[in-house]
Amino acid sequence: MKKLLNVPSEAVKDMFLGLEKCHPDRMSRVGGLTSVFLRKGAPVKDRVGVLFGGGSGHEPMFIGYLGPGLADVVVQGGVFASPTPDLILAAAKAVDTGKGVLFVYGNYAGDILNFDMAEELCQDEGVAVRTVRTWDDVSTGADRSRRRGVTADVYTIKTAGAAAAAGLDLAAVEAVTRRAMENCRTLGVCLTPATLPETGIPTFELGPDEIEIGMGAHGEAGIKRDKIQPARDLAEFMIGRLAADYPLKKGDEVVLMANGMGATTAMELYVMASAAHDALAGRGIRVFASDVGEFMTTQEMGGCHLTLFLLDEELKKHYLAPCDSLAYSRATA
Amino acid sequence: MKKLLNVPSEAVKDMFLGLEKCHPDRMSRVGGLTSVFLRKGAPVKDRVGVLFGGGSGHEPMFIGYLGPGLADVVVQGGVFASPTPDLILAAAKAVDTGKGVLFVYGNYAGDILNFDMAEELCQDEGVAVRTVRTWDDVSTGADRSRRRGVTADVYTIKTAGAAAAAGLDLAAVEAVTRRAMENCRTLGVCLTPATLPETGIPTFELGPDEIEIGMGAHGEAGIKRDKIQPARDLAEFMIGRLAADYPLKKGDEVVLMANGMGATTAMELYVMASAAHDALAGRGIRVFASDVGEFMTTQEMGGCHLTLFLLDEELKKHYLAPCDSLAYSRATA
Repeated sequence: MKKLLNVPSEAVKDMFLGLEKCHPDRMSRVGGLTSVFLRKGAPVKDRVGVLFGGGSGHEPMFIGYLGPGLADVVVQGGVFASPTPDLILAAAKAVDTGKGVLFVYGNYAGDILNFDMAEELCQDEGVAVRTVRTWDDVSTGADRSRRRGVTADVYTIKTAGAAAAAGLDLAAVEAVTRRAMENCRTLGVCLTPATLPETGIPTFELGPDEIEIGMGAHGEAGIKRDKIQPARDLAEFMIGRLAADYPLKKGDEVVLMANGMGATTAMELYVMASAAHDALAGRGIRVFASDVGEFMTTQEMGGCHLTLFLLDEELKKHYLAPCDSLAYSRATA
Repeated sequence: MKKLLNVPSEAVKDMFLGLEKCHPDRMSRVGGLTSVFLRKGAPVKDRVGVLFGGGSGHEPMFIGYLGPGLADVVVQGGVFASPTPDLILAAAKAVDTGKGVLFVYGNYAGDILNFDMAEELCQDEGVAVRTVRTWDDVSTGADRSRRRGVTADVYTIKTAGAAAAAGLDLAAVEAVTRRAMENCRTLGVCLTPATLPETGIPTFELGPDEIEIGMGAHGEAGIKRDKIQPARDLAEFMIGRLAADYPLKKGDEVVLMANGMGATTAMELYVMASAAHDALAGRGIRVFASDVGEFMTTQEMGGCHLTLFLLDEELKKHYLAPCDSLAYSRATA
């Protein structure tokens, strides 16, 4: 493994040291903890606190979404490992002003266990908590609540942050964030593996002309292995699966995301996004906006997620609300 | 080669089709040309036009810097190939409102040839042109004007866009942009090669534990090959070379950039940035701000550039001015 690190086992700690040195105008460490960061300006009195977190190794997820209009506090664990309940509790207490805290995280067993335990600790300390878990990966079965959470995290945290900033109460922030999450569908295609920084071990193997559709963010098995094929054929297949899963109908309006998994060039992402636009247009589905870039990676994995986010008037308003963070910003309209 | 493309020879065209479909709120095509894009709101009456360009394949450079406070028009050529004079002329005419146009591009033979020819064509059509070429790569010899231009392009276009937006005339925009460029120094370290999308050929070869310091953005030879080493040792060496090249003195204030070349994770970039902060602090040099991310890539090359941008009061003002683009944004203070 060739990575720009000091000691592999300290990669996450060193990354957070770098974030702290580079962005004192944006964030500060909570209570001397390695991986719990509060955004500048938080907590805001009489506003719901928004807590976002999960395992490290998927940067810019989660720390990249710390900022006004997004997460008030971010808590990360080790590489691909959930943060522990004590860290989550410290994060929640840092943003609670008596209006409660929304937990937003991906639907993984380890995260559920740790965040649920943290919720119990919060109850003991009088902090009201509600939770929205993200499950958007259509490659993981028909039971939606058992699906993996991937790039839809961007739209759940965007919605939660906008709703909290608008002054909604905890139940209302939870409700609209849940609707945003339920309105997202994602499918990915992998080309090349990631290497775990702490072990140097590749997450999977693929032949020189092979791709895998639906592989998870940690190398979990997908729908099928196939030969590399033109971007337009891949995008047509992927959009077809996503649209059928809702199912979407003519006239529906979506945000389209083309997410790079780590090593994939912006050139490829725009080629895929272009093909996805065509595949949506062919179904009479309107693209309200497009997000193209690296929003959630798996180290230097090669590949692309396509995510759709079905809009309604309220979700559109929250999508367009201003926000400012390292990974996702929108200027005031 | 496994890349998400349709036909490799049409990768650049397809990328620009994608950009056009995804970002109609930000940009529009000039005169039906494939790779000439005008930002929304440009040209601005009685303001100098800012033109930015070069070869494709380095995304988000150059198109990612199209926007208010940055470039008014961007013109790109094929992969690693300069745009042609006719395209540059069309771009210049699209942003000239009688106040002239500043050309900003990297110091490469092909670019110089084509942009200089375009300048002559502009003169024939009554469009006043000034030029700032970026040369910041300290690995390419003592004669600064023969050095390669790499990531300092970010600070030249930032300065040019801010100065033009502030209403400076063409000579003044040129002067301050040139000072910004002269105040930048960059050194890179490469770990893994890029693959040209049109040919599938890797740009160079490196052993499994080898790195090359100072390699150019197209695989040009660097200062030395070495074994992989801890990030803090690499950053100390690189910052030492950069600081000595000015030379910087105690109390100087800089912007620090850690740029990912394509496949390098944000985790590694922050580990390097953290070490660079320490190396600067050890020399008594103050870091005013840090930019960490992918600002200029070479396809999926692995590695990191460290760039320093020495500030003075005027440059700081332009650095802090608001801007909004796909790759680089700053909210109004």
